[in-house]
Amino acid sequence: MGLRAEIFQQPQVVENLLKEQWPQIQEIAVALKDTNFQQIFLAARGTSDNAGLYAKYLLGIHNRLPIALAAPSLFSIYHCPPNIQNSLVLGISQSGMSPDIISVLDSGRKQGAPSLVITNDPGSPMAQMADYVIDILAGQEFAVAATKTYTAQLVCIALLSAGLAEDGEKYTALKRLPAYIEAVLNLDSLIKSIAERYFYMQHCVVLGRGYNYATAFEWSLKLKELTYVVAQPYSSADFLHGPIAIIEQGFPVMVVVPEGMVFNELLGVVRRLREQHHANMLILSNSDEALSFSDHTIRLPKMPEWLSPIVSIIPAQLLCYWLSKLKGYDTESPKGLTKITETI
Amino acid sequence: MGLRAEIFQQPQVVENLLKEQWPQIQEIAVALKDTNFQQIFLAARGTSDNAGLYAKYLLGIHNRLPIALAAPSLFSIYHCPPNIQNSLVLGISQSGMSPDIISVLDSGRKQGAPSLVITNDPGSPMAQMADYVIDILAGQEFAVAATKTYTAQLVCIALLSAGLAEDGEKYTALKRLPAYIEAVLNLDSLIKSIAERYFYMQHCVVLGRGYNYATAFEWSLKLKELTYVVAQPYSSADFLHGPIAIIEQGFPVMVVVPEGMVFNELLGVVRRLREQHHANMLILSNSDEALSFSDHTIRLPKMPEWLSPIVSIIPAQLLCYWLSKLKGYDTESPKGLTKITETI
Repeated sequence: MGLRAEIFQQPQVVENLLKEQWPQIQEIAVALKDTNFQQIFLAARGTSDNAGLYAKYLLGIHNRLPIALAAPSLFSIYHCPPNIQNSLVLGISQSGMSPDIISVLDSGRKQGAPSLVITNDPGSPMAQMADYVIDILAGQEFAVAATKTYTAQLVCIALLSAGLAEDGEKYTALKRLPAYIEAVLNLDSLIKSIAERYFYMQHCVVLGRGYNYATAFEWSLKLKELTYVVAQPYSSADFLHGPIAIIEQGFPVMVVVPEGMVFNELLGVVRRLREQHHANMLILSNSDEALSFSDHTIRLPKMPEWLSPIVSIIPAQLLCYWLSKLKGYDTESPKGLTKITETI
Repeated sequence: MGLRAEIFQQPQVVENLLKEQWPQIQEIAVALKDTNFQQIFLAARGTSDNAGLYAKYLLGIHNRLPIALAAPSLFSIYHCPPNIQNSLVLGISQSGMSPDIISVLDSGRKQGAPSLVITNDPGSPMAQMADYVIDILAGQEFAVAATKTYTAQLVCIALLSAGLAEDGEKYTALKRLPAYIEAVLNLDSLIKSIAERYFYMQHCVVLGRGYNYATAFEWSLKLKELTYVVAQPYSSADFLHGPIAIIEQGFPVMVVVPEGMVFNELLGVVRRLREQHHANMLILSNSDEALSFSDHTIRLPKMPEWLSPIVSIIPAQLLCYWLSKLKGYDTESPKGLTKITETI
């Protein structure tokens, strides 16, 4: 077992999760709605925090829920927690272990707020203190860099959204995910050849917007963890408010441009980066028009935009895997990292 | 007028703002409390978004208010706004012009939520649609990179926090700010000599935690805008969850380490970066112990931690100014940027 095997396990992990957890998640959704929570207060770190960004968009758009991302230090360091008694406290963590996230859940419990934890370890401290637990059923993840546990977290969030909306059609749409994921895993040898072109890359920018804001953050985190490239994620809108100044000729920019609501805005940014800044572009898209602006083409399957983050991260994982491998780095235990990070 | 003059105007801008706006902000605070809002829903971009990070910590810790940062695309692109009728909608913008932020305010108004706008233009579209407006009274800012309007936004947030808490002692503490700011402006020639050491820097990491999480983001944004350095901001806790992998010998790391509640945790991270990763450290601190880990010393005055972001950003502004100047860049109009950025 290892990183590459875990990347390739994703169709099975997702298929199994969709089948096994949908009944329980529907029950949890009914119970949560009875609590009359007004918004979600979300606590997570690292890859799980990126999954939280997907939740912010999906539960915002599909369920009209405002989501506040917790600043854990308010709880764990300043000991002045905000009033969150009307919120659902949502903790996301592969290990369920980080003390700062536990302190947010603990405060929510003391304030009488309902809580839900999405984790790969239902026996973990976080799971034990939550009212409701969703086990992401990803199996043990041996590689330090999270891959299958990230996509499994996204699927649980999507199931929760469908459950809260009591929307069987969304569940039907989710069942197409394993086939979409197989399609991008088949790009493996193409992605290896693209990775070779980025051997000397020292830094880059990764852009996404809307649902795939999460993808930009997770792609960027994988680049840092596995290839030690200084990779900066941005929403394409935030990027125009200052950071675009750093883009000079040949600067590597990676962008997720799915067909859907954000397409036109992203296409405008991609065109500007290409034609005015002469950036080097790596575009993930299911649109020929978007791909025409790319130096290297990674084609995504046609799919609903809200599902695309669960698919689009996978070519990015493969790219980072290959780049790490080509550089001779340790793909399983990147320097300076451990599987479980405990911060206060 | 220009960037350097605007940096040096900050003591006067802050002093004037504290005097002129405190009575009105107290009135606004009373009126806002009558609306019984439960949390704050904050919309901002760029530098103003970084001011919003300060609000998240200050209003969280001092006023126990949970703050959700808006994802403007939910309003402006997906047209599926979350339910925010129990929230105070807070817009922060120098120009008051960005269409995506306007769309958040518009939705809040339609939902019957109270709204407050903090802006340098009380005649702007954003100001016109808000129930309450705080004019930051910074005077026209000619340089594209925001400096005095950022500190003025922070001061307005601090005044709002003191007003909501009906806390005159906090106001008294705020009145010491101009003297603190003068003290760091006096480091100008020292900072110029430090900037010379960073002439060839291509990328770096900027760390902060708690109140100065905002400073890490704003410092990083100034580096990108003015020096085109790929600068990445992190909370010191998030940084340990993956990104620390990129730090090798000599990698430039900039950190704000104020005395206060976050001090011990930050000191541990600084020690680890120095002793295990052999990073090149630039530390802003008012602690001798923290400064002993720094390659270059920029000493902050002793002050309450919650005030420190309004002071600590100023040496960072000067550093970016000097680095831009030394590189022969245009300090007033960085490439690719305009003063007013309108995004959807």
